[in-house]
Parts: sequence; structure tokens; C-alpha cells
Amino acid sequence: MDESKKLWGGRFAGKTDPGFAEFNNSFRFDRRLFEADVTASIAYCEALEGASVLTAEEGNQIRRALRDILAAGCFNDSSAEDVHSFVEARLIELTGDLGRRLHTGRSRNDQVATDFRLWLRDAIDDLNTIIRDTQTALLDFAETNREIVIPGYTHLQRAQPVLLAHWCLAYFEMLARDRERLSEVRARVNVMPLGSAALAGTSFQIDREALASSLGFAAVSRNSLDAVSDRDFCVEFLSACALIMVHLSRLAEDIILYATTEFGIFELGDAIATG
Amino acid sequence: MDESKKLWGGRFAGKTDPGFAEFNNSFRFDRRLFEADVTASIAYCEALEGASVLTAEEGNQIRRALRDILAAGCFNDSSAEDVHSFVEARLIELTGDLGRRLHTGRSRNDQVATDFRLWLRDAIDDLNTIIRDTQTALLDFAETNREIVIPGYTHLQRAQPVLLAHWCLAYFEMLARDRERLSEVRARVNVMPLGSAALAGTSFQIDREALASSLGFAAVSRNSLDAVSDRDFCVEFLSACALIMVHLSRLAEDIILYATTEFGIFELGDAIATG
Amino acid sequence: MDESKKLWGGRFAGKTDPGFAEFNNSFRFDRRLFEADVTASIAYCEALEGASVLTAEEGNQIRRALRDILAAGCFNDSSAEDVHSFVEARLIELTGDLGRRLHTGRSRNDQVATDFRLWLRDAIDDLNTIIRDTQTALLDFAETNREIVIPGYTHLQRAQPVLLAHWCLAYFEMLARDRERLSEVRARVNVMPLGSAALAGTSFQIDREALASSLGFAAVSRNSLDAVSDRDFCVEFLSACALIMVHLSRLAEDIILYATTEFGIFELGDAIATG
Amino acid sequence: MDESKKLWGGRFAGKTDPGFAEFNNSFRFDRRLFEADVTASIAYCEALEGASVLTAEEGNQIRRALRDILAAGCFNDSSAEDVHSFVEARLIELTGDLGRRLHTGRSRNDQVATDFRLWLRDAIDDLNTIIRDTQTALLDFAETNREIVIPGYTHLQRAQPVLLAHWCLAYFEMLARDRERLSEVRARVNVMPLGSAALAGTSFQIDREALASSLGFAAVSRNSLDAVSDRDFCVEFLSACALIMVHLSRLAEDIILYATTEFGIFELGDAIATG
Repeated sequence: MDESKKLWGGRFAGKTDPGFAEFNNSFRFDRRLFEADVTASIAYCEALEGASVLTAEEGNQIRRALRDILAAGCFNDSSAEDVHSFVEARLIELTGDLGRRLHTGRSRNDQVATDFRLWLRDAIDDLNTIIRDTQTALLDFAETNREIVIPGYTHLQRAQPVLLAHWCLAYFEMLARDRERLSEVRARVNVMPLGSAALAGTSFQIDREALASSLGFAAVSRNSLDAVSDRDFCVEFLSACALIMVHLSRLAEDIILYATTEFGIFELGDAIATG
Repeated sequence: MDESKKLWGGRFAGKTDPGFAEFNNSFRFDRRLFEADVTASIAYCEALEGASVLTAEEGNQIRRALRDILAAGCFNDSSAEDVHSFVEARLIELTGDLGRRLHTGRSRNDQVATDFRLWLRDAIDDLNTIIRDTQTALLDFAETNREIVIPGYTHLQRAQPVLLAHWCLAYFEMLARDRERLSEVRARVNVMPLGSAALAGTSFQIDREALASSLGFAAVSRNSLDAVSDRDFCVEFLSACALIMVHLSRLAEDIILYATTEFGIFELGDAIATG
Repeated sequence: MDESKKLWGGRFAGKTDPGFAEFNNSFRFDRRLFEADVTASIAYCEALEGASVLTAEEGNQIRRALRDILAAGCFNDSSAEDVHSFVEARLIELTGDLGRRLHTGRSRNDQVATDFRLWLRDAIDDLNTIIRDTQTALLDFAETNREIVIPGYTHLQRAQPVLLAHWCLAYFEMLARDRERLSEVRARVNVMPLGSAALAGTSFQIDREALASSLGFAAVSRNSLDAVSDRDFCVEFLSACALIMVHLSRLAEDIILYATTEFGIFELGDAIATG
Repeated sequence: MDESKKLWGGRFAGKTDPGFAEFNNSFRFDRRLFEADVTASIAYCEALEGASVLTAEEGNQIRRALRDILAAGCFNDSSAEDVHSFVEARLIELTGDLGRRLHTGRSRNDQVATDFRLWLRDAIDDLNTIIRDTQTALLDFAETNREIVIPGYTHLQRAQPVLLAHWCLAYFEMLARDRERLSEVRARVNVMPLGSAALAGTSFQIDREALASSLGFAAVSRNSLDAVSDRDFCVEFLSACALIMVHLSRLAEDIILYATTEFGIFELGDAIATG
């Protein structure tokens, strides 16, 4: 990594230890924030224009460059410390010193938090679609097997006969709760920290409401110290995912059990069986 | 434990192993469900009357006995396997064989699930009150220390000055999210499984909507197989509690750090200090 | 709690907040360290005598009192903050100011760490005995069912026939590893922190080797800062216990499955079955 | 993935669902077992020769091919379901039907368990070296800063002065325990499951002691059902790693705290600092 190219280079006199630089490098995993980072930067550029930090002409130039960067996509760059420095380096290549001014009133702290929320919002939407499709498959299976009766078990002992559809729709309910949880997590993800700067907010006249609206956020964070450090939404999301996996694992276990020679309720097709 | 008194005694010929009985006994911890269990039974008694399983006279007799049991409170009873058998044994003492009929169309499975939800609903309400009080204390502290400025830190290095009130209100925000999460968990707790019996529902004409309404449940469960086995709400509640503790632990850590000789921002009063 | 009786009372001028005192009180759960605490104190008293902090006569008087306290057992005492202050208060009742001198060169920090290790060492020995008994039961079961052949399963599909004894002895092996792990944890538990004082050791001439030997510790800790803070052994012990539970849970699951109508390999006796 | 090339192809009539195949594919992460898989196969080939399943000539041909495969390294192969089928496919390319006979008396179950243990044994050795190097660095730091005294803290309040070297060597002790734990896990990893086949062992005359010795295993597993399913060693290893991280995290936290303006004990060099 070329020391002179590093964005923090000005402040520190000594050389960075290569082992430390490698340890500190997050580009190999945060590169998935690439789209979110460029998108948030385009919106932030408009906000800086609105705050008269950038002229209309400067704003246009930066946005054009960011759109080109987005179109070119994220590629390997051994001098990038993280995805944010990757995008910033590209921007400076295209616009020179003007590009450096995009970071005015912004910090890595609120930038990362914003990117992360944009990315997770999309991930939740994708996951929600997959679960809805699974629910549809369960409904279809229940519909086409309406007459079939199987034993209902308590402690794996036969208790009462139940419809196969009834068994199947129990999983529909579990997944319905999972989607409800995801939608609640999404509401807390969909709050914009941008404008919090490092931790104390910024004195530039950023119109945070307009910025949030342009990025599709439903609200802006109220306390900058909280906003830059809040990662509750990650724990919440992982917790919701853990419950989804519990439900799918229970479904898989039922299927494996019902497909045994002994239970003989299901027979698995070759399409989903392997040695 | 007197074998002849056991509620399952009729079905099993051999004696229960004493070690197994002790292992299986849950009275020492599920006795906290006592109030919930009696409350749910009183409501269920009305539902059985509505379903013409009990006459008005029989219903009255059982409800009077249950109210006496509630008033007498839960006490040690070495023959009780769990809180449900404790209450049932008391009821049979007071009403004879009539008491046994309260369990008509009901199973331990939906009974336990219902009791647990009633109990947790109260626990969430209590917790919510405590957190709201903590928020009020934070607001008061911010209000009375409006002018004080402290260093704001990133990576424990001084970054920007902030108001002490700003630091304080960051915790207000965290706790606001905690309360939001609790209220969402509460909505999923507040669904009534009663009427699901062991797993397949009951053929008695229980009016589940009326029963739910009398117990303050906002909805009834839709699938009996799911309803008797669903414990998602426990995981959700514990996950919400874990985040609350993360926030309080972070607050405590800040206070401990700010109270060091080196930071010198706070001085702890003797009221909350010990060797 | 009587403020004047508190052991830290001298240092702090203001009153302790009652809510804080209750929060800080650990007597209801650390009272199980009672025996360990008294035992360690008797040995420490000898060490103080060896260091000429106490005369032989004073040492005898304290040890006699501690033996009386041990014989009397631990009882409820609302003024006790924890088990250590409970024992110390009893000692002062019996020996007056002399009792206070037992704490010379000792801190709660090394005292708690020592008590905890003594207690856990016993707990590990008890657990080890129970697991060995379970192994014996598995061996007996294998021995008496030598000829029986059952299906061996992969992914719950029948793969190859195996001896029931072979299945049974797989659990013997798992428990053998569990005992090996426990014995390794025990070796790390069995190291004495006493003599580390608050964190920097003590200047009194405590013969730590003799003290360790009298308490049955195999070694003394080498670094006092590490010794007072090390709780690795708790994590290790819990991790070993988690694996034990995984093995027992797997055994239970096999038995439940093999006892189904469908598999029909086992039939459970009434002694260990309930509704 | 070419259906006709799949190793299980013979048994199943229908086509595999592409989504299922992708879900089931583990090549992208188990390819790191490549070296272990080939090494174990070379040793197993000798064992088959010893059991007269292969002639000396056949054995030589297979081993030559496996050494060529090892030298060529692992590369992307879209038809590989996992690393084992990757190696097997290469072997069949080089030796034709003879290559298929290497799997005689062996199952994926004991093969995977063996590969995993070989790989983890190396990983533990590497980790142990890194920790020993860290201990050496701590010793050097203590040695070169012998005279420096810093405050010792309890609850972050200054308690007693300590040598910086004393603080430093506390971490030496923690890492010493970590290495002890790793060596104990390693002993349980270093047991060979090969020869257990799918679950019930094999009737071919495999000399397991010789096989273990050639792979550097200190012992052979005693029960085949246990051996193919045992993954205790993974949990143990992760638990040991978690404690290592707790220690390193504590060290990092101390350094961050001591490097604050307020504590002022350390000043971090530019080589390991960044914005």
C-alpha cells in the first residue's frame, strides 16, 4: 500500500507497520457496501450543494463522477484500506482536489453507519421475498394434499390424527411471525445517521430531512452520539435470522423423520437426495 | 410423593422411579405461574359453561373454589409435580370429582403455553415501567446539568467537546428503542393458545374469542400445532433483554471510566459506592 | 442493614442507598461458598501465625472460633453483604477485635478467587462421580444385551446393522472424553491465588507453598494481577458441561426415537414415563 | 454440474435439482482440506495394499497419481461437489477405474472426520506458534521496561503501584494457559477415525495402528459409531479460541485506556495508529 496515497497520511509522520495495515484492512469484506456507499455519497453531494458548500457546477461534476464509479463497479485495489477509501480514491482520480471536498461535514463514523443501514435494508427485503415464497410453497403443498391424514405426535408418541395440511400450515404461521419480526427490524434499520459526523453533529447546514428522503429513510436519528455507535439493528437482525433457522431446521427435521423407513410418511425425490 | 394422588396415576401400572420423579418435578420454578394458572382456569371454566360442558351451578362452584385457591396463595406441597397439578389437587379437595372436569377439552400443552404468556405479559409491563423510570432519570439529569461540557471521545481519544446532556440523552435513545422492542414482543406474546388442546384442537364448542377477550389477549392463535409448540416469544424477549443489558452495561462503563482519578468527570456519592 | 455494622463503614461518610445495597448484596447465592470460605480462613490463620502476624495463642483462638462457625453452619443474616462478611461478622462476635486481624494481608479479591476454586474443585469431583456411574450403567446395559442387533442409521436412513451394545458404548466413549476434559479443567482450578491480595501481592511473609499444601492446591499462582482476575476456569468448566449435556441430550433423543411406535426398538418402563 | 460425472450418479434415477445441488455443494469452503485429503488417501492406499485389496503395482500407481494431484494443487472445478469428489475425479482421470477402488472399505463419514482432524492439527500448531511469539514479545517488553512503575487499578480506581513488567507478565500467564488448553485439545484431535467406514467399521483387514502411525495420529478411535459423529474437538477448539480472544481483547483494552490523554501511560507509535 502506497503510504503517500493513504487518506490519513497527512496526520501521521511514521510509516504504518505492514502487519497492522493488513489487520486493519477491511476492503475484502466491506466491498459489498460499494453500491450503498456510492448511492449515499451522491445524495450527500446534493446536501452539500443545498448547504452552499459546493456550487451547482461542482455538485454536478462530483455526481457525474460517482455515477461513473458506480457503473464501473468495485474492483481489486491493493491500496484501498476499505470500500470508502476505494470510492474516494476513484473520485479524486476523476475530479482532483474537488473530490476531497465531498467529505466536508461527514465522518467515516456516520458514513459507515449509513452505508450499513442501506445495505441491510436491501438484504432484509431480499430475505423477506424468499420467506414469502416459502410460505407460498407451503400453501400450495397444503392445498394439493388436502385429504391426507397423518399422526400428530407429542414427545414423538402418536397422540391424535391431524391433516397433513394442518402440519404444513403450522410452518406457515412460524414464517409469518418471522416476517413480522423482519419488518420491525427494518423499521429500526431505516433511520438515517448521516449528519452525525464523528459523534457531535456538524455545523454545516445539511438538510437532513431532505437527505433522508432522497435515500428512502423514513426518519433521521435524534442523537448523534447514539447514531454513530448504534449497532442494535445488527443484533436484532441476527436474532430474527436465528429464529428463521430454528423454524427451517425444525421443518427439515420433521421431513427427515417422516422420510424414514419406519415413519414412511414421505418419500424424497431424487432431485433433493444425495448419498 | 403419594403415587395414588398423581394425576396420571390411572394410566400407568408401575411405580415411578423416585429419581425420575424428582428430575421431572418443576414445581420449584413454575410455581411463579400460580396466579396466571388460576386466572386462566377461571376464564376457561366460563368457556366450558358457554359450551354446555358445565352447568351454571357447576361453573359457579368451580370458580368460587378457584378464587379461594388464589386467595390462599401457593404453598409448598411435596406431592405437586408442577403448579398445574398443585392447583388441580386443591380444586379436587374443594369440589371433589367436579374439579376434574375443568380439564375437559384442555391439555397441559395449551394450558402451560397460556399461563406462560399471561405471566410474561405482566413481566414485560413491569420491565417497561422500570425502563421508563430510567429514561425519566436521564432526562432529569440532562435538565439539571444543561451547561456542562465534557470531551466527546472516539476510540477513547478526545475528539470534540459535547454537552453532558447530549451524552446522557444518547442513553435515552437506546432505552427508547428497547421499549419499542418490548412492545413488539408483547404483541406477539399477547396471543392466546388456549383451545389448541394437546396439538389438534378440541371438538368442544369453546368460544375462543370470548375466552381471549376475558383474559385480555388481543388475538387467538390460528394453528393449534404451532400454538402449543411456539416459544419464539421467549427467545425474542431474552434477545430484547440482552440489548437492554448491553445499554446499561455501556452506561455503567462510561460512569466507571468518567469517575476515575484520571478522567475526573464524575465523583460517585457514598450512597452507591462500596469497597 | 445496620450501617454501623458494615465492614466498609469506616471509609465512607454518607449512607448507602438501600436499592444499591440490595443490588450489591450477593449473600443469597454466594452463601454456597460458606464451607470453602471457613476452610480457607482456617488455613490462612495458620499462615499468619507462620508469618508472626498472629501469636500461637491468637491463632488457636481464631481457629477454634472458625471451627465453631463451620459447625453452626450458614444461616440467614440480613446484615450480611456476602458470605465473607457473614463469616467475618460471626468471627468478630466470637473473638472481638482479634477477629478483624485475620484479614491482614488478604483482600476480598484473592479470598473470593480462592473460595470459588475450592468450591468448584468439589463440584467437579461430584460431577465426575456421576458421569462415571453413568458409564458403568452403560457398560452393564451393553453386557446384558450382548446379542441384540439394531439398525445403524445415517441421516436416519438404515445403513448397516449394529449391535445394541455398540450403540451403547459410543456414549461410553463420549463420556470418557467428558471426564478427561473435567480432569484437565480441575488441574487449572487447583491453583491457589491466595497471597495475591488486592492485585499486587502482600509484603507479609506468607508461606504460600505451605498454605497451598494445607488447602490441597497443587500449585500457587505466579502473577498476582492475573490471579485475582482470572476466571478462565469458569468458562472452561461451563464449556465442558455444555458438551456433557450435548452427549446426554443425544442419548435422550436416541431413546425417544427408538421408543416410538414406528421404530419400536425400546419400550420405556412406567418408572420413567409420565403423561 | 454434469449429472453423469457425479459419484452418486449410479444410485439415483432422477435429476438433481440445481438449487439443491448448489445448496449441497461444499467445495468453496472444504477445499482447504485438499492437502489433508490427499495425504490421508496416500496412507489409506498403503493400508489397502497391506490388506491385499490392492496389489503393490496398483498401490504404486494410485500413490503416484495422488502425489501428482497434490503437486498440481486444488483448482476451481464446477463439477466438484466437495473436495473429496474433486480429488477422486482427478484420480479417476489419471488412473481410470483403478482410482475408484481407493474408496474400498472407506466412507465419506470416516474420510471427512480424518481430513478435518489432520487439518485442525496443523491449524493448532500454527496458532500455538503465534501465541508463543506473542509471549516472547511480552517478555521482551517486560525486560526492557524493568524499572517503570504504573498504578494498579481495582474497578479502575488506583489501588497500589505495580511494575509495568508485572502488568505485562499477567498476560504472559493468560497466554500460557491458552497454550496448555490448545495442547489438550490437540491430543483429542490427534485420534484417527479412519477405518470406521459409514458407522459400523469395515470387514477389510485394514491395519489401523499402522495407518495411524503413518499419518502421525497418536491413537485410533475405539468405537466407530462415536468416531464418525464426534465433533467435540471443534467445540473445544472454538472455546479455547474464545478465551484467547478474551485475553487479547483485554490487553487491547488496557492499551487503549493507557494511551488516552487522561491516563497517559502509553503513547502509540504511528506504525500502529490510523484515523
